[in-house]
Amino acid sequence: MERKTKVNAEEGKHDLTVTREFDLPLELLFKAHAEPEIIEQWMGTKVVKFEGKKHGSWQYETKDPQGNVAFQASGVFHDFRPNEKITRTFEMVNASWGVQLEFLEFEKLTDDTSKLTMHIVYKSAADRDQQLKMPFAYGINIAHNRLQEIVSKLKQHA
Amino acid sequence: MERKTKVNAEEGKHDLTVTREFDLPLELLFKAHAEPEIIEQWMGTKVVKFEGKKHGSWQYETKDPQGNVAFQASGVFHDFRPNEKITRTFEMVNASWGVQLEFLEFEKLTDDTSKLTMHIVYKSAADRDQQLKMPFAYGINIAHNRLQEIVSKLKQHA
Repeated sequence: MERKTKVNAEEGKHDLTVTREFDLPLELLFKAHAEPEIIEQWMGTKVVKFEGKKHGSWQYETKDPQGNVAFQASGVFHDFRPNEKITRTFEMVNASWGVQLEFLEFEKLTDDTSKLTMHIVYKSAADRDQQLKMPFAYGINIAHNRLQEIVSKLKQHA
Repeated sequence: MERKTKVNAEEGKHDLTVTREFDLPLELLFKAHAEPEIIEQWMGTKVVKFEGKKHGSWQYETKDPQGNVAFQASGVFHDFRPNEKITRTFEMVNASWGVQLEFLEFEKLTDDTSKLTMHIVYKSAADRDQQLKMPFAYGINIAHNRLQEIVSKLKQHA
């Protein structure tokens, strides 16, 4: 089955672009990136800290059933403009690549549809390629499917 | 005269590296990047905000003699490790290029000398080239000369 979330990574470049169109109004798509309780659901991680504002910071953490930390990531918001864009740093603890700079853009398509564009900039092409060796495109597509499903339900209950 | 601060920017790449060796102990070189009153002197800008810690933020502003804002820049510290490294975002207001991600590394050479390496990562090669059209290498060399001179005096008075 074709993935709805597209990852575009040109050979030899230091960056990549992730795009996805959602059957969600712009405001709900943004909420899914700005409200910890919604982020926790579709990302499947605990949001330890989330200061959703310019110069705020954030931290995610996931534990396995034994209580060991399985995933930890954190960073800062360089910019945070509701329904428009988020510019943030992103660092995964214990990843073999370093800090990345992410530009998330939120765009209204129709009253009921919207588009997310993530431009991710790595320190080097080698760093980006490390990330791409992980099941990155697969994982983000699954997460976005979950986002679509979970936030659609919120919409019905609103 | 040869510049002491070297800027290395490979053709077609999205990043550049700035290196400079200082006749200053590591601790003083770091202080020059971590104490607002010293930054103000060598950078010739007002430090409006400086939270020198992981996830802190910073803001610089320079006014011309008429009181108009001539230079404004701000960003966040993704990482801030005294005498080791600073990872920060940097955005100059009204610049034609966007946010950049900067990795500053501080290294002890001898008891009295130290080295600064700045790895600056831009959104794109085109963004970097915009920066390089400014008198960037010239400006940073002048600023580093000033840093060397001013902080040497602090050292004598310490």
